[in-house]
Amino acid sequence: MSEYKYPFNDIMFSLQSIANIDRLTPYLEEPVDQGLLEAILSEAGKLSEQIIAPINASGDQEGARIEEGEVQQASGFKEAFHAYAEGGWLSLSGAPEFGGQGLPSVIATAVNEGIQSANLAFSLCPLLSLGAMEAIHLHANDELKAQYLPKMLSGEWAGTMNLTEPGAGSDLAAIACKATPDGDAFRIQGQKIYITWGDHQMTDNIIHLVLARLPDAPAGVKGISLFIVPKFLLNDQGESSDRNDLKALSLEHKMGIHASPTCVMSFGDQEGAVGYLVGQKNEGIKAMFTMMNNARQGVGLQGLAVAERAYQQALDYSQERKQGMNAERTASAAIIEHPDVLRMLMTMKSQLDAMRSLIYVAAVESDVSHFSNGEEQRKAKARTALYTPIVKGWITEQAQEITSLAIQVHGGMGYIEETGVAQFARDARILPIYEGTNGIQAIDLIGRKLHVDQGAAMLSLLEDIEAELNAWHNRSHPAKTEKMQANIEAVQDSLTLARDCTAVCLDSMKSNTTLATALAYDYMMLMGFLVGAWLQIKAEQESLISNTLSESEKASWSCSVAFYCDHILPRALGYAHAIKVGQASVDQLSLKAFQR
Amino acid sequence: MSEYKYPFNDIMFSLQSIANIDRLTPYLEEPVDQGLLEAILSEAGKLSEQIIAPINASGDQEGARIEEGEVQQASGFKEAFHAYAEGGWLSLSGAPEFGGQGLPSVIATAVNEGIQSANLAFSLCPLLSLGAMEAIHLHANDELKAQYLPKMLSGEWAGTMNLTEPGAGSDLAAIACKATPDGDAFRIQGQKIYITWGDHQMTDNIIHLVLARLPDAPAGVKGISLFIVPKFLLNDQGESSDRNDLKALSLEHKMGIHASPTCVMSFGDQEGAVGYLVGQKNEGIKAMFTMMNNARQGVGLQGLAVAERAYQQALDYSQERKQGMNAERTASAAIIEHPDVLRMLMTMKSQLDAMRSLIYVAAVESDVSHFSNGEEQRKAKARTALYTPIVKGWITEQAQEITSLAIQVHGGMGYIEETGVAQFARDARILPIYEGTNGIQAIDLIGRKLHVDQGAAMLSLLEDIEAELNAWHNRSHPAKTEKMQANIEAVQDSLTLARDCTAVCLDSMKSNTTLATALAYDYMMLMGFLVGAWLQIKAEQESLISNTLSESEKASWSCSVAFYCDHILPRALGYAHAIKVGQASVDQLSLKAFQR
Repeated sequence: MSEYKYPFNDIMFSLQSIANIDRLTPYLEEPVDQGLLEAILSEAGKLSEQIIAPINASGDQEGARIEEGEVQQASGFKEAFHAYAEGGWLSLSGAPEFGGQGLPSVIATAVNEGIQSANLAFSLCPLLSLGAMEAIHLHANDELKAQYLPKMLSGEWAGTMNLTEPGAGSDLAAIACKATPDGDAFRIQGQKIYITWGDHQMTDNIIHLVLARLPDAPAGVKGISLFIVPKFLLNDQGESSDRNDLKALSLEHKMGIHASPTCVMSFGDQEGAVGYLVGQKNEGIKAMFTMMNNARQGVGLQGLAVAERAYQQALDYSQERKQGMNAERTASAAIIEHPDVLRMLMTMKSQLDAMRSLIYVAAVESDVSHFSNGEEQRKAKARTALYTPIVKGWITEQAQEITSLAIQVHGGMGYIEETGVAQFARDARILPIYEGTNGIQAIDLIGRKLHVDQGAAMLSLLEDIEAELNAWHNRSHPAKTEKMQANIEAVQDSLTLARDCTAVCLDSMKSNTTLATALAYDYMMLMGFLVGAWLQIKAEQESLISNTLSESEKASWSCSVAFYCDHILPRALGYAHAIKVGQASVDQLSLKAFQR
Repeated sequence: MSEYKYPFNDIMFSLQSIANIDRLTPYLEEPVDQGLLEAILSEAGKLSEQIIAPINASGDQEGARIEEGEVQQASGFKEAFHAYAEGGWLSLSGAPEFGGQGLPSVIATAVNEGIQSANLAFSLCPLLSLGAMEAIHLHANDELKAQYLPKMLSGEWAGTMNLTEPGAGSDLAAIACKATPDGDAFRIQGQKIYITWGDHQMTDNIIHLVLARLPDAPAGVKGISLFIVPKFLLNDQGESSDRNDLKALSLEHKMGIHASPTCVMSFGDQEGAVGYLVGQKNEGIKAMFTMMNNARQGVGLQGLAVAERAYQQALDYSQERKQGMNAERTASAAIIEHPDVLRMLMTMKSQLDAMRSLIYVAAVESDVSHFSNGEEQRKAKARTALYTPIVKGWITEQAQEITSLAIQVHGGMGYIEETGVAQFARDARILPIYEGTNGIQAIDLIGRKLHVDQGAAMLSLLEDIEAELNAWHNRSHPAKTEKMQANIEAVQDSLTLARDCTAVCLDSMKSNTTLATALAYDYMMLMGFLVGAWLQIKAEQESLISNTLSESEKASWSCSVAFYCDHILPRALGYAHAIKVGQASVDQLSLKAFQR
């Protein structure tokens, strides 16, 4: 197994030249200068490489286990979590009034890329904690915030999110977990499934956020409330004290992320678990949805991260493994000398470049949407809302292809678990499923994000892309090549396709929502490849005028962009064609079509 | 977990209406009539459903293990192997003079589809046995044939293939295993890896076919010979007797096919394992290559089979699982009522239909190539040679997508191992790797099959496809619809693309073989989607004039073909575009492109 290397240069280039992190400067009391950014990322890289990555394969093999009702995490995870917490990484973008460092969340994103590449199973624990903290920060009253946030930010306590139930997966309206008033508090009773890091021994307490239904609540999603349900109740000093009435019943045996305990949680087997209402009654879903953009972008980041790690291992292996002869048939060849292996590696790398650009562009946009006001905020919110399903859906689909190609580069060795590369594919397979399946992301894009303003936000994005493409096409620069112009023209052609398909989808939404949702996946993928291509062109144009990139780095970017435009972007042709001609053949489908 | 159902109707339709199994009648002493065919397939279906399928998930969990130097197979496998052998399934297409039934191998293919769908790990044991038998039958002398074939055909003994060594994977020229003459026999010494079912306790003896190098052999592939090396030497009565000097050292821990023991084999740790030369000295590679078409088509069949099984489970689950509301929002919906789920299921089914058609068309062509003579044989051999890399490469790539979609249809449940659907994806992941990686298949298609006759065989295939498409387009039939005509026209358009790309590849092979091999994968995929589309049209046209299919079956075929033409075939646009414009961006690739 090769060692993970935090892609510092690629991330810095993405942040500064593609995502324009400087857009955030006007909003910050203390601007994040180049030196600080480099210092943070370089420390995050070291932590990822030296502390978190080394327990990835062992965690996969050992897994988490349940003993006498308590979940035991894999060896080394507790120590790694403490190192992570002590480094202050949990509090990076937390609110200063509760001990946070108040940095923009795009910086946390860049830090998390490293943690997630190093060890996806591990990374889910702090990720879920951060999600729980965000819910508390945005929706809980001041008392609850003061009680829970400081110790969660410091990593003394962890947090979880409890949504899914056996009968309520994608459909949260079906939630049946009960909450009964009991003095100032509530008693929670019910079962939750698929609870990531639902129990463990890494922290002194675990703060569960639980969706449940009050006795008088209306049916459906408008009758769901959000509660804090701590594993240990707090005493008057605010310290963990008596055990609450909840426990992990069992762990799932999963295809991957073995070291991340996925729990069936039981609340209130005895007298009912004590819970505290977060926000208003019956507004739990709203509270969850405000976090959804970040959580979904977070899963997209996981797709980038696992795919990057798999790519690094394939690239290393391709240089070590000798097989066959070189092109001149004079010596044995490392397999990277074979054109088909180069094709596989560049299929991985050029897509990773596009995925990373999109991740940081979307993260900066999301930060702007939080920091800004008025029309600027409205625009940033709409743009973030558009990006989110593409980040989650398209990037996690690409992660399937890239982790699978990493196995393929290894040949037979790739299928042997000890090689370690199969783990990345097994781990990555959850990503198109959780935080809303990719089918749901696609429907979100077309049915909500596109429909809500009759495509205005999308058309504005396409206009911005067009304006940039035109400006780059008109730019004169001594190092600009004909191929660079051709790349831009290829993306301009795809932009036309994207416009046509947007019109088709908007029309479909008016006449036949069933039809539109069946085309949604193709549309999401089309937009992913288009946005990826736009950002690849941006990378090439920025590298053209960069005075920090070396000549060899610029040449590498050119290879990536040319390959992307020639070999990856053409997939958009297929998706666009399917959207244009394929309506009737979806509309006629029903169970009967499968019965012979 | 749902139960496997042998797709009897689809297979019969493929054999009779798509692959025209009647083409074989003139060559057979006893024709295979409809009644016999139905009886054979119906028995094979029962065996697959009732005996082989029930031990698939348990075999995955239990796996094979090694104890005191002996490999122990998973529970129930020995009994299943005996049931399989006693049913006469190993001898189906074997030579009658050694106890075989002499049936065309396409019938064995139809039988094996069931066995492989039911349990891929199990199916590899008889498959490797059949491969070993074929090598012995085609290349060994009469004495060896008489000694080994009858007991292998009856299933008393199994066979294996020993090719790969630690330093010799895709590159067999690097084989280092030694064979030293010793009287009439040879002493074999060396290590082999990735030996499927290299040891087990299911049969009284295991007949290993081993590639090794004689002392005076030339370097490279022209110095490799093939040997029979039995686990137990035969006594004068031809019965298994003394243990030979060979053993399984260890088993690989694999991502899937856990119940198939993948052995590191050691030959000749002591005095050298006794081996017997098969065929001529230094012609072992030739002997292996004569089996290659069948073995590679066999892996394509595995792709179809595992994907079919995964699809069946997803289709069943989609009817059981309730989530969300129906379109009218009047009742809870089975998830198959959601358009995006229908899209996923038809993406699976329409590709399975095309894959199955190709499997049986190629199998009949291969039978014709064995039975016929003269010009007819030459044509059938060339056509079979063209089909083989597409069958292996394209179908096993589709199997990755289909088994992954089966997980996706299950949502979170798909990621839980107990559901059983993840196993199909883990099992299927070996298919693009073994029997020549798909990169090697692509290079075989472009560098050997296309290059050897300057594209003549490929152009002849494209002409035949065109002629059929034109005939169908001109056909008048009262039930023919406009959509059916449009489907044909879509494939006609793709045919033009395929012609253009064939010309590009032929040109590239002349000027720059490196370049051509880097485009090979795209070309293989393009040809897969084109051939798949042609056969889907054929299915629709045959169903149009069929008087055996019911109206609802005909409607189901129409849905599948329309979906394929609208949603699957457009992928050919992307591959074709990449081949046409993407030469330079591959040609410039080297290690440097990845260094930043």
